[in-house]
Amino acid sequence: MSWEDNVRKVVPYTPGEQPKFDKMVKLNTNECPYPPAPGVQKMLKEMPYQDLRLYPQADARILTDTLAEYYKVSPEQVFVGVGSDDVIAMAFLTFFHSGKKILFPDVTYSFYPVWADVYGIPYETQPLDENFRMVAADYKKENGGIIFPNPNAPTGVEEPLSLVEEIIQANPDSVVMVDEAYVDFGGESALPLVDKYENLLVIRTYSKSRALAGLRVGFAIGNPKLIKYLNDVKFSVNSYTMNMPSLLLGREAVLDDAYFKDTLAKVIKTREWMKTELKRLGFSFPDSKSNFVFATHKDKSAEEIFLYLRSKQIFVRYFKLPRIDNYLRISVGTDEEAKILIDALEELLG
Amino acid sequence: MSWEDNVRKVVPYTPGEQPKFDKMVKLNTNECPYPPAPGVQKMLKEMPYQDLRLYPQADARILTDTLAEYYKVSPEQVFVGVGSDDVIAMAFLTFFHSGKKILFPDVTYSFYPVWADVYGIPYETQPLDENFRMVAADYKKENGGIIFPNPNAPTGVEEPLSLVEEIIQANPDSVVMVDEAYVDFGGESALPLVDKYENLLVIRTYSKSRALAGLRVGFAIGNPKLIKYLNDVKFSVNSYTMNMPSLLLGREAVLDDAYFKDTLAKVIKTREWMKTELKRLGFSFPDSKSNFVFATHKDKSAEEIFLYLRSKQIFVRYFKLPRIDNYLRISVGTDEEAKILIDALEELLG
Repeated sequence: MSWEDNVRKVVPYTPGEQPKFDKMVKLNTNECPYPPAPGVQKMLKEMPYQDLRLYPQADARILTDTLAEYYKVSPEQVFVGVGSDDVIAMAFLTFFHSGKKILFPDVTYSFYPVWADVYGIPYETQPLDENFRMVAADYKKENGGIIFPNPNAPTGVEEPLSLVEEIIQANPDSVVMVDEAYVDFGGESALPLVDKYENLLVIRTYSKSRALAGLRVGFAIGNPKLIKYLNDVKFSVNSYTMNMPSLLLGREAVLDDAYFKDTLAKVIKTREWMKTELKRLGFSFPDSKSNFVFATHKDKSAEEIFLYLRSKQIFVRYFKLPRIDNYLRISVGTDEEAKILIDALEELLG
Repeated sequence: MSWEDNVRKVVPYTPGEQPKFDKMVKLNTNECPYPPAPGVQKMLKEMPYQDLRLYPQADARILTDTLAEYYKVSPEQVFVGVGSDDVIAMAFLTFFHSGKKILFPDVTYSFYPVWADVYGIPYETQPLDENFRMVAADYKKENGGIIFPNPNAPTGVEEPLSLVEEIIQANPDSVVMVDEAYVDFGGESALPLVDKYENLLVIRTYSKSRALAGLRVGFAIGNPKLIKYLNDVKFSVNSYTMNMPSLLLGREAVLDDAYFKDTLAKVIKTREWMKTELKRLGFSFPDSKSNFVFATHKDKSAEEIFLYLRSKQIFVRYFKLPRIDNYLRISVGTDEEAKILIDALEELLG
């Protein structure tokens, strides 16, 4: 017997590597290739530094009010956290408490089973079909909750809102979480449904479309009752999860909508160019509504291409996992980065 | 049956209020009355804003390396989190997993039972004696882990290192956490014991002595094995808890040791003056080694004094809890704030 016998032992999620080379092309963690809104820089310089001695706003209203106004909901419908990972972790802890199996796709964000394990939540994965599409019927059995990303990661595939609604409607006794980390890049959001279904929680992040992965801000929008339960659990874990920089800089990123839309347009334009070029080079992929392309090559193995690109300091994401171990998840970079990638692939495959 | 039946329902911790008045004197949440180190301000202006688009360093080495060097331990002995609340919450989740009751004092940081509840950890409080002192024998029964602050909160009472060591030594099968949020203000740290006992975790915060409550940085130091287990659970909850501002500003606060020591000396000097004046006005209190005084008055009830001070926009902390409902926890402010407090009390009591 020793203290080690009483330790919770887990296999943690492994985030994408964060290499640091001067000339690298980093297309492995779906970050935004453009900097955050100029207001963020301005606020960094103007932030009342001496106020850092005080606890930040516990209810984070600076941020929830701004998000509520932007998304046309009430502040009582908004929950914020340290990236959408923190939001989803809290939501697992809060809503998946029945002891029944929760459901999510077999090919999806690989953090879902990790959260389930750390909180002791049983789960059952539901296989996507051969085109990486969800099958609505799979989500109509007894369950303790449902979560899926839309568009899905790492496939980039978007399900129509009709399927999302069908699943929510079929599960009034479960909370259904729709993880919309990538929706800004052309997907259709389930947000219009939050006033219709009180069991729907929509989750978003600043890390992709708002170019603030380094700030760690995510949020959820849902029925005020859901948000109240979520806040109760959050306040039982940490009174102040959002630090002052997150609150103040996070607000700036929402206020500048013109910059936001311009960034999205640029990323989408580059993505479409990348699709054309990848196709030309013999890749195929499900149509992507996200800021990445999930591609497989007709001749060369994904692992081989991954290692080749790595040797040229071009970093993409390769998952050695069932069903997807011959795919690469390639983030959309700047035009220049996309060109370096395509040129390198041309050299190998052309 | 509804989705609400499956929700984890908790009674959350209530943090001290954060009033916003122009001329208030805020002595209710033990914040530092002085701003953080000047290097923090400089870094705010110099921070590479465009890098905020990238995920922050997942292993937080910028911060753990700096802390390791300062505290003369290895980086593998340091864990950082979003305030010590995040650190302790993770530690509860990681180390208090036996199903056996954990032990902590009856009068202590009121977040301990809240964390226990949210994670389903059974606990048994151990009564402090009539002088608010811990009784070592109480911590020598079977248990699933032990936590206590030293100096204790909200009493400010410090236990000698010999008692701390006695408890650690008696519990080789449990992790013993010593929450040293207030130790910098004159207490003796258990840090020298971390290389001797692998079941000891020492927890610290930036929110008090380093004047960075608004940044949310806390840390733990212990045996590398403990830290590894803690990181595994952390990486199962959120890959990146520390945002870029926390990492970069947090480092600056450690690098300027002269400023740190000067701040501590000022707070301690004001605390000693406050003690003399409070005594003169009929208060008594256990000797405080922290940045607050936990005082009771010979005639007037604590609640009455609390409400009187509140009406003058002087905020102190009052806990309506068994054994301590006739005490006020008064944070040490600047000399000017302390004088306003004492003058107001003089008016009521003198």
